[in-house]
Amino acid sequence: MLFQVTMNVQLPPAMPGAEADQLKLREKELAAELQRDGRWRHLWRVAGRYANVSIFDVSCPAELHELLTSLPLFPYMEISVAALCRHPSSIHDDDR
Amino acid sequence: MLFQVTMNVQLPPAMPGAEADQLKLREKELAAELQRDGRWRHLWRVAGRYANVSIFDVSCPAELHELLTSLPLFPYMEISVAALCRHPSSIHDDDR
Amino acid sequence: MLFQVTMNVQLPPAMPGAEADQLKLREKELAAELQRDGRWRHLWRVAGRYANVSIFDVSCPAELHELLTSLPLFPYMEISVAALCRHPSSIHDDDR
Amino acid sequence: MLFQVTMNVQLPPAMPGAEADQLKLREKELAAELQRDGRWRHLWRVAGRYANVSIFDVSCPAELHELLTSLPLFPYMEISVAALCRHPSSIHDDDR
Amino acid sequence: MLFQVTMNVQLPPAMPGAEADQLKLREKELAAELQRDGRWRHLWRVAGRYANVSIFDVSCPAELHELLTSLPLFPYMEISVAALCRHPSSIHDDDR
Amino acid sequence: MLFQVTMNVQLPPAMPGAEADQLKLREKELAAELQRDGRWRHLWRVAGRYANVSIFDVSCPAELHELLTSLPLFPYMEISVAALCRHPSSIHDDDR
Amino acid sequence: MLFQVTMNVQLPPAMPGAEADQLKLREKELAAELQRDGRWRHLWRVAGRYANVSIFDVSCPAELHELLTSLPLFPYMEISVAALCRHPSSIHDDDR
Amino acid sequence: MLFQVTMNVQLPPAMPGAEADQLKLREKELAAELQRDGRWRHLWRVAGRYANVSIFDVSCPAELHELLTSLPLFPYMEISVAALCRHPSSIHDDDR
Amino acid sequence: MLFQVTMNVQLPPAMPGAEADQLKLREKELAAELQRDGRWRHLWRVAGRYANVSIFDVSCPAELHELLTSLPLFPYMEISVAALCRHPSSIHDDDR
Amino acid sequence: MLFQVTMNVQLPPAMPGAEADQLKLREKELAAELQRDGRWRHLWRVAGRYANVSIFDVSCPAELHELLTSLPLFPYMEISVAALCRHPSSIHDDDR
Repeated sequence: MLFQVTMNVQLPPAMPGAEADQLKLREKELAAELQRDGRWRHLWRVAGRYANVSIFDVSCPAELHELLTSLPLFPYMEISVAALCRHPSSIHDDDR
Repeated sequence: MLFQVTMNVQLPPAMPGAEADQLKLREKELAAELQRDGRWRHLWRVAGRYANVSIFDVSCPAELHELLTSLPLFPYMEISVAALCRHPSSIHDDDR
Repeated sequence: MLFQVTMNVQLPPAMPGAEADQLKLREKELAAELQRDGRWRHLWRVAGRYANVSIFDVSCPAELHELLTSLPLFPYMEISVAALCRHPSSIHDDDR
Repeated sequence: MLFQVTMNVQLPPAMPGAEADQLKLREKELAAELQRDGRWRHLWRVAGRYANVSIFDVSCPAELHELLTSLPLFPYMEISVAALCRHPSSIHDDDR
Repeated sequence: MLFQVTMNVQLPPAMPGAEADQLKLREKELAAELQRDGRWRHLWRVAGRYANVSIFDVSCPAELHELLTSLPLFPYMEISVAALCRHPSSIHDDDR
Repeated sequence: MLFQVTMNVQLPPAMPGAEADQLKLREKELAAELQRDGRWRHLWRVAGRYANVSIFDVSCPAELHELLTSLPLFPYMEISVAALCRHPSSIHDDDR
Repeated sequence: MLFQVTMNVQLPPAMPGAEADQLKLREKELAAELQRDGRWRHLWRVAGRYANVSIFDVSCPAELHELLTSLPLFPYMEISVAALCRHPSSIHDDDR
Repeated sequence: MLFQVTMNVQLPPAMPGAEADQLKLREKELAAELQRDGRWRHLWRVAGRYANVSIFDVSCPAELHELLTSLPLFPYMEISVAALCRHPSSIHDDDR
Repeated sequence: MLFQVTMNVQLPPAMPGAEADQLKLREKELAAELQRDGRWRHLWRVAGRYANVSIFDVSCPAELHELLTSLPLFPYMEISVAALCRHPSSIHDDDR
Repeated sequence: MLFQVTMNVQLPPAMPGAEADQLKLREKELAAELQRDGRWRHLWRVAGRYANVSIFDVSCPAELHELLTSLPLFPYMEISVAALCRHPSSIHDDDR
């Protein structure tokens, strides 16, 4: 089950650099893990903004919620979610 | 070069059914052709709306523009475009 | 799998009354059928507006899309969709 | 009398973890109590966001206001309220 | 039970003048009747716009919905509704 | 001369409780005084939000401005103002 | 009593040219009359848009409403109104 | 050359009263000077809000920018600018 | 004097193709003329949309208004205008 | 490949003046360097706002992202990006 997720990150200006670096490092590690197990199918940077466009492949909305809220940067993100399904004009039976 | 494109379609209520069907058929044929040649990489339906989320892979913005404006439904679409690039946390060198 | 769906209806002022009545009648019949088979769990009117708030219980986003686009009033609706999941503070294991 | 309430929570980044935990614990206890007495009929998490969609069943707007403002997280919430009523296409006489 | 209702009217430019006059006349008659029976407590024009701000006093949201949708101009209105209750700083026990 | 005023209050999370209580107490006293002298005609709470809907009856916009900016909570409010006038469908000559 | 009024005009594309010319001519005549009697104090074009920024000087909101709704282009305008008063930093006692 | 400028002021709640007073005093002095030399033609308060509507008369956009950014409250303002020109229905050749 | 202008074009779906072609042809001829005389300095297509981003170089806002409203597509455009000036970090004295 | 970029800067009110000056100085130096190497083609100030409109000429979205995120003021900017291409009505083959 696919969801498109857009994440906009806004770190508080007062956050110490070391704390921000630590958060980003943990975020990167978890993102890598979720990509390797196939649930974070695509992860692209939006050019010019501290934001990404992602495609998640999960078994249900609850799993998506669990993944997103486990991200270290979650408290600093504005997130939008759209449930996706197969497009009748897609030439793929299972486009992931 | 990747672009995320979101298309919302709104056909005029007064358009005759046959005209709408013809437009959609031509749209589908062109979409299939663009997917087969690799430029329309992903095409997903947004659940519950007459809209899609797409990923295009083109050589420049002009090519993207040419493709999108050649779509039969283009005059009836509200389109948003975001240029994408590799995310530093992506585990892929070339995620398409 | 639960989705909250909000539907705002806007019929074209020029639509003949008989056509509107026919659409609403077919909408009502299909809505009743979908409620009886348990997929349209809740259907409430928003006071003062030609709109409803609904809870759908489907197996996947594709099924939700199929249901919503089959509604006779679909071409005249502005629809928003939110995927729901169990709230950690809910006292129900399976609140539908 | 039914109201749909959407709550978006935004805790200040500077709030100490213990204070946040304490707030959430008290919020959960009160939410449970209000669900048990039947006034907080439904409580769902919006997937991917620190937000919920709820249905309240109260005797008047004043009671709704009293309940919502008594929530420990109320000062940190952005809340929207919609009064609901029976939908003419509902198959239930009293859908709660 | 009080509700604040804001109504913005937009008649289609193509509506014949006689039809518009007829609608407005019936709207005025019904508005007068609802004011006389005490359910449409206040009705003010918003200076410079084809809009009004109103206070309704009804027994439940369903009654409000019935009243508003019975207005001849309802199909041409954009309506917003806010449930009201006694303000703790009001010097009136029952401000209507 | 009537104005509809909507006030949304947002106190800074870091404001000490005693300071907030003091502000609210002074706000309440001034609100009572302005209601007693007839200039703050109506004051309603918007159910579920730290907001009010009010009707002011003043001799000119300058007097309205003076009243609103004298409120202790003014610096923490987002305010919208609409000038009102008699509605042609009102059954009252002077609805206040 | 001063009000700032912004008017955005949108004529229906299908309106015959002669009808539009007639409307604009009558609008211009009435605007001239209202400027001469001092109630339409200032009238500026917003560069690049079919819109104006105006300052009206009237005795009450009802008079403003009567003036604006008497404009031949009123049905085709989107209007916003702001009540003005003397600014404490103005060097004029009565800036009109 | 005329520009309409709208300024909304939002001082940080934590700013000490003396600092705010000092800023406002300097703002007032500069505003008076700019009004006296004819470049700040009109300055009105928006009733009920910490905001003003102004008309500036400058030789070019750069001069407008220099004036606005020299205001002591500039860092705390949200500003919108619209270039104005003579309206064809104005009865004045040079309405300032 | 530079202005950035963004134009979004929306032709009515019912406009006959020949009429649209004629409009676009005249638009193109006038655009070319204005570019050759140096007043329409830059003209770029926004990729994926029937829109352009332009830089105009005119002597005053009135000239800008005259140019834009003379465009054959003006009645079908949504236009936004921003006055520009030299940026202190620009390495050009006169960047056009 | 051209991109239009709009940058709105908002420095935290609490940032010490020396720190702000240092940031702006480094921003200016980098901006100059990027203009000299031809990638930051145009840089204009938006009159009356702490904002700029820019045209970038880069080989791909990734390069644009790298440039923008390297700006010292990037964490304090709200940025919008639009991919541009040649306009069919442009008289230039390569308008930069």
